[in-house]
Formats: sequence, structure tokens, C-alpha cells
Amino acid sequence: MRTIAYIGTSLDGFIARKNGEIDWLIQFDSEEINQSYAKFSSGIDAILMGSGTFKKVLTFPDWFYHQKVFVLSSQIKTVPDNLKDKVTILSMPPKQALIYLSEKGYSNIYVDGGKVIQSFLKENLLDELIVTKVPMLIGNGIPLFGELDHDIPLEHLKTNLFANGLVMSHYKINRHNNP
Amino acid sequence: MRTIAYIGTSLDGFIARKNGEIDWLIQFDSEEINQSYAKFSSGIDAILMGSGTFKKVLTFPDWFYHQKVFVLSSQIKTVPDNLKDKVTILSMPPKQALIYLSEKGYSNIYVDGGKVIQSFLKENLLDELIVTKVPMLIGNGIPLFGELDHDIPLEHLKTNLFANGLVMSHYKINRHNNP
Repeated sequence: MRTIAYIGTSLDGFIARKNGEIDWLIQFDSEEINQSYAKFSSGIDAILMGSGTFKKVLTFPDWFYHQKVFVLSSQIKTVPDNLKDKVTILSMPPKQALIYLSEKGYSNIYVDGGKVIQSFLKENLLDELIVTKVPMLIGNGIPLFGELDHDIPLEHLKTNLFANGLVMSHYKINRHNNP
Repeated sequence: MRTIAYIGTSLDGFIARKNGEIDWLIQFDSEEINQSYAKFSSGIDAILMGSGTFKKVLTFPDWFYHQKVFVLSSQIKTVPDNLKDKVTILSMPPKQALIYLSEKGYSNIYVDGGKVIQSFLKENLLDELIVTKVPMLIGNGIPLFGELDHDIPLEHLKTNLFANGLVMSHYKINRHNNP
């Protein structure tokens, strides 16, 4: 089983403004970026996100995930009717959610959302991290990374540059070497 | 006149641990990095830093700056005897310091240190930003970036990759377009 975070941030490390807005981020959407996401997405068989990301995604005009989405949440109990076959709520800790997904036969898990990524890093559950830096400082907002009680060394696998100035770096976490 | 920040951070955006330690950073020193710094440094004619960076640099075994160093500080009044011809204390706001340096004939200024870079960004005084991302999460520490009251768009000029996993991105700030 492999867990991968794929996320965009401002150069100063925010995934959204304090009010959740990502206007500064979506202005960098491009065909090149979409193709890159499609390539990443083709290697994924399930998506695990937090309630914040799920609520954000519900505001988008279309449901754009091809894979089954699992929402890690103890607050959210139900999903809209039109998404009942696409979304499952998992009210359990991250580690247990991974065991559940593994038992269901999923092996390449896209981990999405700031809080979920932070808890995966804290609990040493993340295998890969793909961070795309947008050429913009927004000064404050919701940070991608949070406090850790130990360093996490990363292995840089590759960096892709996009015509509109985005820098996408792909890191591997050798989590069996970590505490 | 051109002001340029050149600085390394952890992937989570810290320039040092809370106690100022940069052990996690210096382990990535390499000949390739030194050559890159030498190339950058050859285009610089003065260095402007804050008191925090100056105090840190004083703990290093050697004084490694070839250019004249200016320390922006109202606290520090004197410099060690052996550095009297290398270091000048400027007790003035950033904008005035730039006017002073310009009048002295300096035109390519290396702006160093978290707080000084933050104040240059806030006051729209920075022309270029070279950030090197170290493949490491340290979880907390002294952040490179701080609060801003407006977005700062950046123009990505280039990104260089180093064999040991460092990713150096060079941005231009078109500050005449900013508020």
C-alpha cells in the first residue's frame, strides 16, 4: 500500500486563505497542470480526504473525482444523495482508515487536505509528497504543514517546472526509517 | 539598484530551529552548492543583514563574506575589532538603508535574514528572491515568511536542482506593479 499527498501551496506554504478561498491558486490552472494531475490520478485507486476538503469540494460545480472518495470525519454523518455511491464517510483514526482501505483492496491512496496530510506526517503514515509551489506570497492562511515532534527527512525524486511558473517537487518518505 | 534575498529553508518553510540551530541545513553543504553561492555572490556588492543573522554569523569559525556587510540594527552599537573594516552597523529603517547604500555606490544588495527579508517584502523593497528548499521537514522553527497585508505575485525565473535533493527557485518581484 502506498499513500501519496498531492497538493498546491503558495510559496509561503498556504493551501488556502483563512476563509478557505483558493482564488490565488486556481488562477494558475492550465492544460499542462490538468495533464499532470491526470497522469498522477491514473495511478491512484482511492482518495482519502478530511472534512474541510470535502466541504470545499462540494462547493465546486462538478464532482471531478474518478476514484472512490473516503472522508475521514467524525462530524460528517451523511453525504448528499447524488454522491452516495461515490463517497464513504470513515469515522476512524488515520491508521485504522488505512487498514480498512487495504482490506477493501485499495493500494494507491491519494491523501488530500491540510489536516489529514499533517496527521499522516505526524503518525508516519505518508509515503510520498508531491507539492506544487505557486509563484505567489499570500501572507497568511491555512498552512500545509504543522508541528512535528521529530524531523522528517525526504528523498527528492524529481521536480517538474510548468510554463506558468509552478514548481512541482515529488518527495519520497522512507517511513520505515523514521521513529 | 537591485535587492536580492538568497536563503535556504526546510520544505516546511523554516530558516532555523527555534533556538537558531541550522544543523539540519548545513548537512546539505556540497561543492555544487558552494559553486552556486560563489556564482550568486560574484554579482553582489554589498550584504545587508539583521542582527539575528549577524550574531549567528559571528559564531562561525571564519568570516566568509567578500563584500562589505551592513547590519540593520538599533540594538547592536559596535562590531568586534577584527571586523571594523568589514562590517558597518546601520541604525535606520530598511528604506533609508537602501538610500544610504545607493549613495555609497552599491547597486546589487544581498538581503539576508528572516526578519530583514520579511520587512523588505512588507515594504515592497525586494526585487528578487532565491529560495532553496532542503528535503526535510523540521516541524517548527523560525519561518522565512511572515504576515503580509497584500498578495505578492512572483515571476518564476528558473529552478536549479542539486544532486543532494535541494531545489533552488529564483523569483523576480515586479515591485513597481505592487501596492
